[in-house]
Formats: sequence, structure tokens, C-alpha cells
Amino acid sequence: MPKIVGLEVHDIRFPTSRELDGSDAMNPDPDYSAAYVELRTDDGPDGYGLAFTIGRGNDVQAAAIRALAPLVVGRAVPEDAQGLGALSAELVGDSQFRWLGPEKGVAHMAIGAVVNAAWDLAARRAELPVWRFAAGMTPEELVSLVDFRYLSDALTEQEALDILREAEPGRAERIAKLEAEGYRAYSTSPGWLGYSDAKLVRLARQAVADGFGMIKLKVGGRLEDDVRRMKLVRETVGPEVGIAVDANQRWDVATAVSWMTELAPFDPYWIEEPTSPDDVLGHAAIAKALAPIRVATGEHVQNRVVFKQLLQADAIKVLQLDAARVGGVNENLAILLLAAKFGVPVCPHAGGVGLCELVRHLSLLDFVAVSGNDEDRAIEWVDHLHEHFTDPAVVRDGRYLAPVAPGFSARMHDATLRRFRFPDGPEWTDR
Amino acid sequence: MPKIVGLEVHDIRFPTSRELDGSDAMNPDPDYSAAYVELRTDDGPDGYGLAFTIGRGNDVQAAAIRALAPLVVGRAVPEDAQGLGALSAELVGDSQFRWLGPEKGVAHMAIGAVVNAAWDLAARRAELPVWRFAAGMTPEELVSLVDFRYLSDALTEQEALDILREAEPGRAERIAKLEAEGYRAYSTSPGWLGYSDAKLVRLARQAVADGFGMIKLKVGGRLEDDVRRMKLVRETVGPEVGIAVDANQRWDVATAVSWMTELAPFDPYWIEEPTSPDDVLGHAAIAKALAPIRVATGEHVQNRVVFKQLLQADAIKVLQLDAARVGGVNENLAILLLAAKFGVPVCPHAGGVGLCELVRHLSLLDFVAVSGNDEDRAIEWVDHLHEHFTDPAVVRDGRYLAPVAPGFSARMHDATLRRFRFPDGPEWTDR
Repeated sequence: MPKIVGLEVHDIRFPTSRELDGSDAMNPDPDYSAAYVELRTDDGPDGYGLAFTIGRGNDVQAAAIRALAPLVVGRAVPEDAQGLGALSAELVGDSQFRWLGPEKGVAHMAIGAVVNAAWDLAARRAELPVWRFAAGMTPEELVSLVDFRYLSDALTEQEALDILREAEPGRAERIAKLEAEGYRAYSTSPGWLGYSDAKLVRLARQAVADGFGMIKLKVGGRLEDDVRRMKLVRETVGPEVGIAVDANQRWDVATAVSWMTELAPFDPYWIEEPTSPDDVLGHAAIAKALAPIRVATGEHVQNRVVFKQLLQADAIKVLQLDAARVGGVNENLAILLLAAKFGVPVCPHAGGVGLCELVRHLSLLDFVAVSGNDEDRAIEWVDHLHEHFTDPAVVRDGRYLAPVAPGFSARMHDATLRRFRFPDGPEWTDR
Repeated sequence: MPKIVGLEVHDIRFPTSRELDGSDAMNPDPDYSAAYVELRTDDGPDGYGLAFTIGRGNDVQAAAIRALAPLVVGRAVPEDAQGLGALSAELVGDSQFRWLGPEKGVAHMAIGAVVNAAWDLAARRAELPVWRFAAGMTPEELVSLVDFRYLSDALTEQEALDILREAEPGRAERIAKLEAEGYRAYSTSPGWLGYSDAKLVRLARQAVADGFGMIKLKVGGRLEDDVRRMKLVRETVGPEVGIAVDANQRWDVATAVSWMTELAPFDPYWIEEPTSPDDVLGHAAIAKALAPIRVATGEHVQNRVVFKQLLQADAIKVLQLDAARVGGVNENLAILLLAAKFGVPVCPHAGGVGLCELVRHLSLLDFVAVSGNDEDRAIEWVDHLHEHFTDPAVVRDGRYLAPVAPGFSARMHDATLRRFRFPDGPEWTDR
């Protein structure tokens, strides 16, 4: 029986703050980073995963992943739902480690990185991309991956099974459709807060020309700037292209409402992260005040329990799961099931380092095996840093292509690992 | 101007799992631990703080504290509200580090440990215990310590100021009362889940003899055990002594309601942590179903935003803040103000390592300068590990004595640091 014989972690940082790529109202100068994990095996391919951070603290994230090694090294390589369910349950359930969360922040992202690396490993052994690997599991197997603790007042195991069984008949057709047509994307690349008006207009026009039906703008710096930028972009793209706006947690409840009221004449498609990601009741109040403008959040939502409440409270009309914030594929499957139960579309957060690469697998899985639906859904697209991955995300004519390489697409090139290692890689020592 | 010239961190672990002290339904074998921080100064006393964990992962917590050193070393020693407010704001606001939370889990507890060490430092320089040091600040100074971001829909700065001003006239009398009579305690020592019935009964009887008006039992293992233990203890202590019960997050909503309905005949005073600490709506549903049994939570509540919602949703009747879970004294002052605004009594979580030592300062501050009230309030008391502190918490006749030594009481003996250092202290190498 093949075993996991090693867990290696790398602190990888990209100096994105030099160009203000990724700048927004709360994150003026991020250095997009990854705590990158390799699961070594004694037979067959290794597995790759990551937690995304924006610079300082990436070493802490790396330490948290390393702390999980005693629970991982020596295990049989997980090859199926049973193995992947057992690994996730053991990592989340470790009673001493759990105190550091529970199920949130650094400790939980570490679990997510390791669980995702295990999925990569299992899918590589099966010679399938993760979305196809998971979509080949029965409804019973998929349900066995999910931790229903704290969910049963909103979603029972039986309800989850019913959702998955209802989606089962059309799986093959939907796989064929994805392989032929891909999955809708929207573009955040034009709208970083640090960009000039000229760059914003140029990139917005380019995004439309490239086939995107929606773009996203960062807001929340100065109101008059936001009004001017939103007006400019609306004039540039015309009335048919969606413009989402993203405040990155900048506001209190009343400010969110008054600020967005000023932007409403330019028809924003959604307002993303208007306030603290922890504030379920705040999001609900904002959603009620701003309807029909949709409220969206998720990239900082710490776990399935908070997503459950956002849905219960009718606080979001768009759910933005993130591949690397929660406890990996298993918990994201729980989140997809919650969204399907409440009929809320999932438009994943992406960008960062490797998030586009990873999260496309989850949206494809959602379409094939969970919600069975791709209406009103799109995956975020940011065209940064893909060149560092061995199986990069590719978007054509505004759509993600369905990945075909085995695994979860988190693997970086060896040259990238050497060059961007912090603090001793040449990208950092040669500055 | 004196400066902070060093930040040292120690991974300290006590082998409490050997005796099942601290065992409960979610934490069967904790090794009570502290990521312990020393702020070195170039003039005058050093400052001491800690984050409490229960074993594995304490090294990750230590790494997170160490990661804050560049933001702390080289600063002027904070000596007043302005210095302590600026330090807290800078640590919480660091845009790159913030991604690891925001304001939750390992990263936030690290900030709490450093902020608390800075309070220790400032109070030592003022030659006052922290509760007296803070209670000597004006309402304006106290308000300047608080980050009102995300709070304004429940508590504005003006409302906070009004609360503090209303409590101002009686401060001297209440300080005198605390110095004469101390502050009410309740005891958790009898009720750990790993104890036999005989030990439980003996310790419950002892607690009443020692003057405690309330004790606490761990529940959530097996229902028949809980019913038997609860009945035994009620028979032992009689109808006048309060019995709180604590499920340590064990249940889903429906289970919490049905389980507690079985224990209701024995008149539980509160049910603590019935479900996930992240589940505001779940706590609200449980509170509604179980009234008049109070719902209590807090030791794992990650920050002021979640406490705000628990209060807004009428989900808790007892607020159990923790000295070392959130961002230090500054954020706990926000939480005390929220509790005062909503009229909910604060009964802090304590025990662990150093939590009794620290949190008594916060309850005393609450009585003197915030709520002005000590009715229906008590601080948890667990009689473990106090011998390791230079200014240990002392309880007599069921009441905490008011601390008089300068500082925040987190300092451990040097011999303890040597003996319990993990993994190379003799307590661990000599096993």
C-alpha cells in the first residue's frame, strides 16, 4: 500500500506590490504569496497544495502546515472518498490543534492546503483532473466526504443526498458541455484601485473585446473617485456588460448603504464584501436596504458555519467560495451543497496565487454533480501569475477552459519555487 | 524615551492530559499550554503576555507572535491610552498580516498576546495593576482605545462615551468595595468529564464548603451520564447553589435543545457553548427554545464582531469574554461596552494557563468604569497551574481578591519557563 512519506512546505512570495496589481481599499500593497505544500509518496506521483496569503505572515501559514506533518506522514495515500474523508475528519477533529480555530484562520487554511494536496494526489493517481475525479463519485460517496456537524438545522445528510441524486442523470451531458464550451468567467483585471483612470478604461475596453460579459471594480477608497470611475467604466462598456463592485470589507453597515446608493445609478451587478466577513447580520441588513443590488461575499468567510448563516439570513445573493480559505475540497463540497439547497449561485473568488487554477475544478464539479446549473454563475478571472503553474488556468472568449491534466492544478514550476522563495530566493535577495 | 528593544517567545506546555484535568466533550486530553511573550525594554520593567492553547499547535501560535516583532521592536514603550491605542491599531491594521484572519484565530490571538504584554508594561511603569491603571483613564481616553469599525450599527462612539460617563461618578467607591470584598467567583474544578462520580461529588461538596455559590459541569459525552451526574450534583449541593453546564460546542441546534430538555429538571443555570462558537443564528434558536435556561458563550468567540451579533440576535444571556482569545485589552474593552449597551452580564472564561490571572483585571475594570454593576456576574475559577505565576490569582470564600501588584499578572516564574519549555524542558525530556 503506497504511503505518504514526507510533507514539505515552501514560503513563496511574489513582489506584486511593485506594480499595485491586487491593490484595493483594504490591501494597498499586497505581495501575493503562497504557503506551498508537497506531499511526498513512496510510490507514484506526489501531491501539491497551497494556502494563499498576501505577504507578511506567510511564514506563519507555512509553520501551520508543517505542524500537521505528524498527522499526515506515514498515512496510506488516499485514493478514494473514504481515504479523503478520513484524512479531512482527522485533521479537522484533532482536539488539540482545533483550539487554534476552531475551523478558521491560519490553522484552518493549513488544513485546507493539506486536504487539497491529498485530492491532487488522489486525482493524479486516478489520472483525472480533480473535477472529473470527484464527479465520478456516487452521491453516497460525495456525502461521505462532508462534515455535517453544525449544518443540520439548514442541511441534513439526507437533503444533501437528494440534491446529488437529482443532479445524477445529466452528469455525462454536462461534462461534455464543459469540455466543449468551458465555464463563464468575469474579469477583475481592469479594476484595481491603484490603476489610473486611463489604465482602467483601456483595460475595461479590452476585457469586453476579450469576451467578458462582466468586469469588477474595486471601490471604498474615496467616494468621489468611485463615482467617477464607475461612471467612466459604465460609459466605456455600455449598458449590457455587468459591473460588479468590491469594497473589500471597508465599510460599516450604514456607510455601505449610503455609499452604494451613490453608485446605484450606474447599475452595479453586485456589491462584494461591503463589511466584515464575520458580520452575518450586517450583510443581511445591507442586502435588505440595497435590493435589488445583490450582496456577495466569501473569500474571507472562514468556514461552512458562516456560509450557512449567510444563506439562512438571506444575506447574500451570490456565494463566493474560495478554494484555499476553508478546509479544502471536502468543506467546499459542503458549501456547494448549502448553496444548492438555498438556490444561491456560486461565483468563486479567484486571483491571488493559484486560486484560478484550483477553483475552476469546484465550479465544474458544481455544474456536473451538485447544482447542475450554470446560470447566473461565473468564475473570477485575474490574469496574474499563471505562468508559474504547470497546469495554468486558461480563459478564452470570456470562458475558462475545462482542465484536462490529472490533479488539482496547484503545482508550481521548480524554477518558480527556487526564484521566489522568501527570503532567500534571488527575486528577493537581488532587489 | 524608553524603547521596546526585543520580543522573545517561549513555547510552554504543561502535561495536564496525564490527570484528565481539563477534559471535556471536545477536548479529551489537553496539555494546557501558552505561547508566552516577553517585551524587552531598554529602561525599566519588561512586559509579559501569553496566548493560551491546549498543546499541539502551540509552536504555530508562538511563530505568529514572533512574526509581529518587526511591528513592535523599536517602538517607544507605550505608557498611556494613546500609545496603547496606536499599538493595537497598527497590529490589527497591518494589511498583509490581516489576510491571515482577519481578526480571528492564530493571527488574532498573537496580536492579543502582544497587546496584553504592552498593557502589562504600561501598568508596571505606572506601578499599578492593569485594572487600576485602566480605571484611572478618562472616558475619552478609554473610548480612544477602541476600534469601532464594524460596531456602529450596534454601538457608536458617542454611546460608548455615554456609558463610561455614567459610570464615572462611583468609581472610587467601587474600587474601595473591590479592594475590601473582591469579586464573585464560580468553580469549574469539580466537573471535568474525565472525573469519576465519587470525585465529582467530593469536589462539588468541597466547592460549596469553600464558599462558591455556583459550580460548573462538563456535559455532552453520553446523555445518560450527564443526567446521572447532574442529578448527583444537584442532590449534593441542594437547590440554592447554581449549576452551570458546558457542552464545549458538542451539539447541533436540535441536539442542544433535546439534550438540555433532559437536564432541565435539575435546574441548570446556563448552558455554555451548546454549538459552534461561529453560529450566531444557531445560538439564537437554542436560546429561544430553551428559555428560561440562559445560553452562554465566548471563550472561542473570535472577535467583537461576533459578540456584537450574539447580542443583536438576543442569542446569549451571559457573555463569557476571554482575556487571551481576542485582540487584547483594547478589544475586550469594546466587548465590555457592547455587553453594557445590551445589558448582558459578563462572566469571563478562565482556567487554562494564566486566564484567571489576566481576566480578573477585566471584570474589575468593568465594575469600576464600564457597567458599574456586579450583579449576576462571576469569574470562572479553576484551581490549576497558578503556582507558575509570580502574581497568582487568589480566591477566598468564593471570591477573587483584587490584584494589587503592578502589571497584568501574566508573568511566569523563570523556573517554570525552564522546566516546561517544549520540547526540550526537563518536564518533557525526562518522561
